[in-house]
Amino acid sequence: MNLAEKYLSIRKCSEQICEPLQTEDYVVQPIADVSPPKWHLGHTTWFFETFILEPFLVNYQVYNEDYNFVFNSYYETVGNRVIRTDRGNLSRPSVNDVYQYRAYVDEAMVNFLSAEISSEINDLLVLGFNHEQQHQELLLTDIKYILGNNPLFPVYSDKKSEIKSQENEALGMLTVKDGIYEVGYEGKEFCFDNELNRHKVYLSEFMISLSLVSNEDYIAFINDGGYQDFNYWHAEGWDWVKTNKIISPMYWFEIDGKWFNYTLKGLHEVNPKQPVTHISYYEAYAFASWKGMRLPTEFEWEIAARNFNWGERWEWTESAYLPYPGFNKAPGAIGEYNGKFMVNQKVLRGASIATPEGHSRITYRNFFHPHLRWQYTGIRLAK
Amino acid sequence: MNLAEKYLSIRKCSEQICEPLQTEDYVVQPIADVSPPKWHLGHTTWFFETFILEPFLVNYQVYNEDYNFVFNSYYETVGNRVIRTDRGNLSRPSVNDVYQYRAYVDEAMVNFLSAEISSEINDLLVLGFNHEQQHQELLLTDIKYILGNNPLFPVYSDKKSEIKSQENEALGMLTVKDGIYEVGYEGKEFCFDNELNRHKVYLSEFMISLSLVSNEDYIAFINDGGYQDFNYWHAEGWDWVKTNKIISPMYWFEIDGKWFNYTLKGLHEVNPKQPVTHISYYEAYAFASWKGMRLPTEFEWEIAARNFNWGERWEWTESAYLPYPGFNKAPGAIGEYNGKFMVNQKVLRGASIATPEGHSRITYRNFFHPHLRWQYTGIRLAK
Amino acid sequence: MNLAEKYLSIRKCSEQICEPLQTEDYVVQPIADVSPPKWHLGHTTWFFETFILEPFLVNYQVYNEDYNFVFNSYYETVGNRVIRTDRGNLSRPSVNDVYQYRAYVDEAMVNFLSAEISSEINDLLVLGFNHEQQHQELLLTDIKYILGNNPLFPVYSDKKSEIKSQENEALGMLTVKDGIYEVGYEGKEFCFDNELNRHKVYLSEFMISLSLVSNEDYIAFINDGGYQDFNYWHAEGWDWVKTNKIISPMYWFEIDGKWFNYTLKGLHEVNPKQPVTHISYYEAYAFASWKGMRLPTEFEWEIAARNFNWGERWEWTESAYLPYPGFNKAPGAIGEYNGKFMVNQKVLRGASIATPEGHSRITYRNFFHPHLRWQYTGIRLAK
Amino acid sequence: MNLAEKYLSIRKCSEQICEPLQTEDYVVQPIADVSPPKWHLGHTTWFFETFILEPFLVNYQVYNEDYNFVFNSYYETVGNRVIRTDRGNLSRPSVNDVYQYRAYVDEAMVNFLSAEISSEINDLLVLGFNHEQQHQELLLTDIKYILGNNPLFPVYSDKKSEIKSQENEALGMLTVKDGIYEVGYEGKEFCFDNELNRHKVYLSEFMISLSLVSNEDYIAFINDGGYQDFNYWHAEGWDWVKTNKIISPMYWFEIDGKWFNYTLKGLHEVNPKQPVTHISYYEAYAFASWKGMRLPTEFEWEIAARNFNWGERWEWTESAYLPYPGFNKAPGAIGEYNGKFMVNQKVLRGASIATPEGHSRITYRNFFHPHLRWQYTGIRLAK
Repeated sequence: MNLAEKYLSIRKCSEQICEPLQTEDYVVQPIADVSPPKWHLGHTTWFFETFILEPFLVNYQVYNEDYNFVFNSYYETVGNRVIRTDRGNLSRPSVNDVYQYRAYVDEAMVNFLSAEISSEINDLLVLGFNHEQQHQELLLTDIKYILGNNPLFPVYSDKKSEIKSQENEALGMLTVKDGIYEVGYEGKEFCFDNELNRHKVYLSEFMISLSLVSNEDYIAFINDGGYQDFNYWHAEGWDWVKTNKIISPMYWFEIDGKWFNYTLKGLHEVNPKQPVTHISYYEAYAFASWKGMRLPTEFEWEIAARNFNWGERWEWTESAYLPYPGFNKAPGAIGEYNGKFMVNQKVLRGASIATPEGHSRITYRNFFHPHLRWQYTGIRLAK
Repeated sequence: MNLAEKYLSIRKCSEQICEPLQTEDYVVQPIADVSPPKWHLGHTTWFFETFILEPFLVNYQVYNEDYNFVFNSYYETVGNRVIRTDRGNLSRPSVNDVYQYRAYVDEAMVNFLSAEISSEINDLLVLGFNHEQQHQELLLTDIKYILGNNPLFPVYSDKKSEIKSQENEALGMLTVKDGIYEVGYEGKEFCFDNELNRHKVYLSEFMISLSLVSNEDYIAFINDGGYQDFNYWHAEGWDWVKTNKIISPMYWFEIDGKWFNYTLKGLHEVNPKQPVTHISYYEAYAFASWKGMRLPTEFEWEIAARNFNWGERWEWTESAYLPYPGFNKAPGAIGEYNGKFMVNQKVLRGASIATPEGHSRITYRNFFHPHLRWQYTGIRLAK
Repeated sequence: MNLAEKYLSIRKCSEQICEPLQTEDYVVQPIADVSPPKWHLGHTTWFFETFILEPFLVNYQVYNEDYNFVFNSYYETVGNRVIRTDRGNLSRPSVNDVYQYRAYVDEAMVNFLSAEISSEINDLLVLGFNHEQQHQELLLTDIKYILGNNPLFPVYSDKKSEIKSQENEALGMLTVKDGIYEVGYEGKEFCFDNELNRHKVYLSEFMISLSLVSNEDYIAFINDGGYQDFNYWHAEGWDWVKTNKIISPMYWFEIDGKWFNYTLKGLHEVNPKQPVTHISYYEAYAFASWKGMRLPTEFEWEIAARNFNWGERWEWTESAYLPYPGFNKAPGAIGEYNGKFMVNQKVLRGASIATPEGHSRITYRNFFHPHLRWQYTGIRLAK
Repeated sequence: MNLAEKYLSIRKCSEQICEPLQTEDYVVQPIADVSPPKWHLGHTTWFFETFILEPFLVNYQVYNEDYNFVFNSYYETVGNRVIRTDRGNLSRPSVNDVYQYRAYVDEAMVNFLSAEISSEINDLLVLGFNHEQQHQELLLTDIKYILGNNPLFPVYSDKKSEIKSQENEALGMLTVKDGIYEVGYEGKEFCFDNELNRHKVYLSEFMISLSLVSNEDYIAFINDGGYQDFNYWHAEGWDWVKTNKIISPMYWFEIDGKWFNYTLKGLHEVNPKQPVTHISYYEAYAFASWKGMRLPTEFEWEIAARNFNWGERWEWTESAYLPYPGFNKAPGAIGEYNGKFMVNQKVLRGASIATPEGHSRITYRNFFHPHLRWQYTGIRLAK
């Protein structure tokens, strides 16, 4: 694939994720963390327009000056931003307008990519690819939230499964010896700035599970009163449980004594063998405490991960999201990509069934606030 | 017109109001007071289904059991209600689904109305007509809010004017002598329960303006520092001004030293001769204080109104919304229509350019909380 | 009594109310509506200093310039006000400082009152007396709140009873004929501006109870599920019940199947014969609905009151707090006394066991927001 | 000193800190994080009563059963806890009651300590000593908050200085070589559970400043627009700055173009040579970014600290507060001491002028949420 083909192929994936939607599904924003699908489609387009076409394509005509205001996200450097919770109030631009905007930018990009580009622009382009792929995962999880919080529980797709492997057998634990290890990205392909610098860490000996915690494991925790005993929880986790009356993972409903959960295929009985998902860090921690174990650190995970299968669930780690030694923020708006979020968040490692093909790496550092659970999160135990 | 024709004619008006909309405009709920247009279309349909078809049409098959949950509003008697602010989170039922629901119920209603109906059912039917007309006014004001709070300021319609008369001349004041007067509805047509009983009141002599306060009058108040001087305001009004940083009516924007306002025709310069609108009770009161005058009571208004033109703006009165002597709540869900709101609200009299034809009466009592201003509200002075 | 004696006698009452307190009780502010006792003592002193001594006593030296900031209340005209909820954060001035401030101002006032004063100053003085008396009632109810919300339930005084008459017999209802009546203050003594102008009203025939609703009446409402049936409540009242999980009057506790209430004498079993108290307007309204009756309007109350005993409880009326015909705000800070509160509040008539001697009148208009219940409120029924 | 003498000496320090207070100062709680001084005095007493006297002193009579409810803090294991923000609403127990409670428990403790105690009890005792010392630091910072947020700015003491050394010279930076180091407590004296296990870490080479950032350094940041440029801040830090309108450290006031700050000696001009204090982690991070540097990690700090003076300010580190390898929660209420707070907090190292003698260690891990700044926090730079 040449660059233009690569560009179009990635862009097309975003639109394919939205194919099962009705127009109305593109518009709503039930909670601040979930963005309307049309916003994702517009925002990723705005990224290419703003960071590549505007500065580098001679005589490029911006599609609509107002869209900067509407589709900007958190980039303080680029004009005023819309308050995030306001996205769900904007009925215009319409879904059709957004697709026309995409077509307009795509045409200009293909045109632009037909000529040779500098390595600086190539870096921006690849960043744009990865940015769009990150939003593809959010698109799917946001769509799930929108449909899964509707009392009609509409089916997204009968084909899309929420697990890759049919089995999730308990596989025992791996022991890793203490010593100095190297972590962080090494290579010549793309990585995010937060994966650098590659550096040495000292790890004490540890054990880590070869499989993820399953739904039936988690139901045992529920049945044993896990949500009622503060001893398993952080003080903030316990407040979160009490304030929000949490009694199970997100999307779970108890009907006539059985657990059902909303999936992309609609509301179905919980499959006991699948890896548990849609749990917060607080829940992951409480589960591990109840088991007399703990969550791995992100470095333990990175060292051990070549020895187990991963990629079904974003796995909560015990690590806070912090800069690596020698971390450097890029200048300008691009520099806001990661560094500014390095406080009060937890690292998740791995990938999930919603992660686009080719967007996962063993050094990839995902991060969310500890109470969030609308992503496909999961639990791997350590001790 | 027979009853079925009357029914269809009223139902059609709701759909005509929505004709200029794009699908996305039907879905959003920018503030709790504004409902998504598709909710209005569904809720008014649910009213006929729930209060007429279900109890009285033999073998009627409810269109969708879940719709009761989605389209119920405040009727505590009828199942669980949806939290009002949640309406804007529901992408389904789709706009198309809602129109099909309307068609289904309309067909059943026309069928039902082809036979003779009892006077009890006739009363419910007429209540349903008036209920739908109330929502027609809300539909238009809610649409205006949705479009007028979008940074693209889309035009609703180039044809729909926000005034009926072209002129709004200052016409002087009328003096009404003191004495006993009768207020409240008298007659055999429909009225709401809150217009009864017709009863005597004693009015002291008063003067009331024959015309509404105009935009240029109101600009004089702004220019004289009306929004900066607490002396004109209630304590709660002053808090509202400070907390919300209010400096002008809703939909007004100062651009290069001139006042513009968003109207159904888009963003245009304020017309100085039009009656001011989209002001809260707090602002109406403060304006009157600044003028050394006051707002009329609802009874003063009702007695004087045969002597002036009204119907362009809902006119804030000084009266609190309270029951008339002998007011009786109807039994059951219908009884929740008005009485339960009789606290902390102000009466507005008259009607507005958004009020449907045939839905206004000199005894009509509209009511809103004092801070609200997304309706076509206005000011008439008294002393 | 000459003016100086009258002054000292009223001032002394405030201090007598505080006699049973420990220093710590003077300081706290458990909710925004309740002020620390030392604030009341300072604020009433500040009133005389600011409105009489500063403008009229030659060479008067303000006690402490900072006290204006600390003891001002809602008078926007006089400098910046302290945010009301902040009063409970201020440990200084100390209680001792406040008593010294009182002594300093009292000495200056007595000195000032030894000479002749103009009728303008006399009016301010009498307003100051009434202002201090209003705060005496608040002092007692605020002290009750402070002690009654402490898990140790300290006794305020073993001597102070919460009823005046030992009996509260059901006495039947009085019928008042329809006709024109006059309401509002008439006479040459002091009244508040909100009691003027005296004016005519037309009343339809009504019945009003000769006695107050008792605790046993109210327990019947509780036992009949009154707090669980939305039909008896305003929509806002029902939200208030649900949000705050209200199941009984304030200060009531159910212990082993019996109702106890905190009184000035500590926690004791509820006396069934006493008039119910510490209920909100919402509860008064719901109780009346449950009885198939209603609350009287303030004018019905005023006309009927010469025929029954009143003064044990502030009686919620159905009337909103609104200006009388011809109501005029005084110029300057004194003009802020009443008029600015005339929105979203309900009128209460009568007086309570906490009202100082000589501070009640048949035309007196007390007012509070409908959800408040830390005053000695009560219920009288009408129909 | 024998154990009883040691006990009494530590207990006395708490009371000495309160000596300059007036009774009213013991009572208020201006923000949730600041507790009333009388609560600290009661809570530390409750600790000895609950964990030592009740379980181990035969026939011990609890002073007042209700005090468990009033003076418990966060120990979920021990009964219901009072909502933390409620502490400032409780006027009783009075200050005098609390001192009597202290005397009663102290007498029982001295009696108890006259006999031999087991090593288990000794551990609890030493934990109680350290617990009381932690509250001594909070006592002083809470008192400062209470007095420093009073518009009268009362002086706490003319003798207590906020710096130990008179000079704070810029001393250059120390370079530490990369390699494996050991961190965490080693020895036989007391340490908190969060300082264990001692373990190896690998540190990359780093530089760390030998002196703290001074007020004049910090003023340069302010003058350069540090609070106006989002580039220096975390996204959450920037929101905090905007929401709270932060423009300087806590307790700073700009008067006629000069910076003043409230200190224990009252309001005085800022001393440019003193180490800056009362800044949040967000500000520490932003300052370091502006300098082109960063904050040290807690392990860098621990390794380097033997080479510089520390103890004037709690120094924000870049490290999140997380468990060490092999961290084990003790069983029961004592186990809640530290582990449950290990999320969303930042580690501070060193000690401050408010830290009691003998309560600091090079391995001590203090922790607070990143926005808090009422402690004597400071900044040391690294790169």
